[in-house]
Amino acid sequence: MAVIGLGLMGRALAAAFLKAGHPTTVWNRTAGKADQLVAEGARLAPSVGEALKAGSVTIVCVTDYQAMYELLSESEGGLDGVMLINLTSGDSGQAREAARWAERRGAHYLDGAIMAIPSAIGTAEAVILHSGPESFFEEHESTLGALGTVTYLGADPGLASLYDVAGLAMMWSVLNAWLQGTALLRTAGVDAVTYAPFARQIAATVAEWLPEYAEQVDAGAFPAEVSALETDARAMAHLIEESEAVGVNAELPKLMKAMADRAIAAGHGGEQYPVLIGEFSRPGRDD
Amino acid sequence: MAVIGLGLMGRALAAAFLKAGHPTTVWNRTAGKADQLVAEGARLAPSVGEALKAGSVTIVCVTDYQAMYELLSESEGGLDGVMLINLTSGDSGQAREAARWAERRGAHYLDGAIMAIPSAIGTAEAVILHSGPESFFEEHESTLGALGTVTYLGADPGLASLYDVAGLAMMWSVLNAWLQGTALLRTAGVDAVTYAPFARQIAATVAEWLPEYAEQVDAGAFPAEVSALETDARAMAHLIEESEAVGVNAELPKLMKAMADRAIAAGHGGEQYPVLIGEFSRPGRDD
Ligand SMILES: NC(=O)c1ccc[n+]([C@@H]2O[C@H](COP(=O)([O-])OP(=O)(O)OC[C@H]3O[C@@H](n4cnc5c(N)ncnc54)[C@H](OP(=O)(O)O)[C@@H]3O)[C@@H](O)[C@H]2O)c1
Ligand SMILES: NC(=O)c1ccc[n+]([C@@H]2O[C@H](COP(=O)([O-])OP(=O)(O)OC[C@H]3O[C@@H](n4cnc5c(N)ncnc54)[C@H](OP(=O)(O)O)[C@@H]3O)[C@@H](O)[C@H]2O)c1
Repeated sequence: MAVIGLGLMGRALAAAFLKAGHPTTVWNRTAGKADQLVAEGARLAPSVGEALKAGSVTIVCVTDYQAMYELLSESEGGLDGVMLINLTSGDSGQAREAARWAERRGAHYLDGAIMAIPSAIGTAEAVILHSGPESFFEEHESTLGALGTVTYLGADPGLASLYDVAGLAMMWSVLNAWLQGTALLRTAGVDAVTYAPFARQIAATVAEWLPEYAEQVDAGAFPAEVSALETDARAMAHLIEESEAVGVNAELPKLMKAMADRAIAAGHGGEQYPVLIGEFSRPGRDD
Repeated sequence: MAVIGLGLMGRALAAAFLKAGHPTTVWNRTAGKADQLVAEGARLAPSVGEALKAGSVTIVCVTDYQAMYELLSESEGGLDGVMLINLTSGDSGQAREAARWAERRGAHYLDGAIMAIPSAIGTAEAVILHSGPESFFEEHESTLGALGTVTYLGADPGLASLYDVAGLAMMWSVLNAWLQGTALLRTAGVDAVTYAPFARQIAATVAEWLPEYAEQVDAGAFPAEVSALETDARAMAHLIEESEAVGVNAELPKLMKAMADRAIAAGHGGEQYPVLIGEFSRPGRDD
């Protein structure tokens, strides 16, 4: 096992491998960041090339893709036959390009995304997404398991990045909706701790609807079995009015309504909420 | 039990009381809408005044508060001693005003909000929120139980409306984030049904964080125990770039980042996400 890049995240990754008993080689541009890991049993590679030769798998975790290209291009021995797992954050296009770049140099390449903070690495809470050829993942799945909950998404190397940002969008959305509600309720003297279980319950309930709503999206048919988008838009108007009446932010409610209104103007008012996939799938007015 | 207002929702409420075996009196401006209920055993009151006298509780469920004032003002006998539960949708200010209006006329008043569609009424899925004097709720809780899951929120009659719109904001936010993710993943050929379980899992996980995050809001202190808002904002930039790169809507990601950026500009970049309560608690730029 080799880890290249010993920033906050890379150090956590290397430490988790060491803790799980895997012989671990490390390399970092600023060598001093390896000191603690070396004290814990890691081997410090004298060059990137040596690190690439050291283990059956090499993980790269640096600031961005550009940094990865720079440091790997320097390596003399090249990438031929190297199993490279790139856990550096980037977008799906960068991941696909990196996969082609690595393959041209004879490397086996998986792209990954870390949905966790460094302190969670090594626990089941740390979700690490992988995409690329399935056989590469299967071969190393048990070793990677030292890092947390490792997941395989599919052959397209861009998938890990896409799932990563999609998951973050869900995280921020739940948090923002909770803050919107908390702000509303605080105007009536209800504290955040009192309101939170209600928000938690709604989020958990709506989460359960998603698989069924997804069938409508895939079928491209949105019969209003539960309610029509028009009904939602009227209630959105209430949310905006209520937010403005009590003096809290109404930007999020207004964006919701603007998107619903556009779908209604396009003739979808009698259909069910997931018909908004049409709006979400194309650039917005200011995009 | 009396139900005034037999639109889609009022009819469902009256039917649920009948089904639970409660003697039920009904009234509607357009009397014909009572026919089916009368066939099922309801008594049709000849006037609003008679309906108000008929049961131990009178539920009003009409289009809006204005309609409620109009029809109740017409009643000759007045409201003295009447237990009135208003399940008409409105905002918290309207609810508080209606409570004062009813109290001045000697009525006992509870304000409610129905978080359900008519077909769910009478099942546990139908959540009906109540606010106003607790003793009124307690006295009638078991009867109201015929309608679904009935909940009491507090003495302020505005609470039911506030929780209602806050809950809806959460519902739309989870759906919108799921649609954003679905739109992103579909560009890579991943269908909605494949992506949905991932979105569900993230929503459910983040929902569990809310009670603890709420403690930060109440304490007004946001130490970056998990991560700093600046880190979130950088990842939001990735979400925007990814959305734009694959050609899907980026308005929601941009709004998220704009709100985070404002908090960062105000000096909160090193604090944790719930510090955004400051932004959510005040009118936005365009509000
Ligand atoms: N920290 C988190 O919470 C977190 C969570 C999820 C994902 N990630 C992702 O993990 C990756 C690393 O994050 P981090 O928190 O470890 O960042 P960090 O602490 O800033 O470390 C950055 C690392 O990249 C190296 N680096 C940057 N440019 C380089 C170059 N041109 N050549 C060689 N090495 C270079 C740095 O080397 P020097 O030490 O020599 O500067 C350092 O090892 C990022 O893509 C990040 O988005 C981080
Ligand atoms: N339907 C839902 O899914 C749903 C869900 C949650 C909450 N709600 C709330 O429940 C309430 C009723 O909704 P609904 O779906 O039953 O609406 P609806 O089908 O449009 O019925 C409206 C009712 O209000 C009556 N009304 C309107 N103006 C009146 C006036 N000036 N005087 C006397 N009666 C008047 C109507 O009488 P006529 O029959 O004579 O016109 C009818 O009974 C609304 O506040 C709505 O927001 C509905």
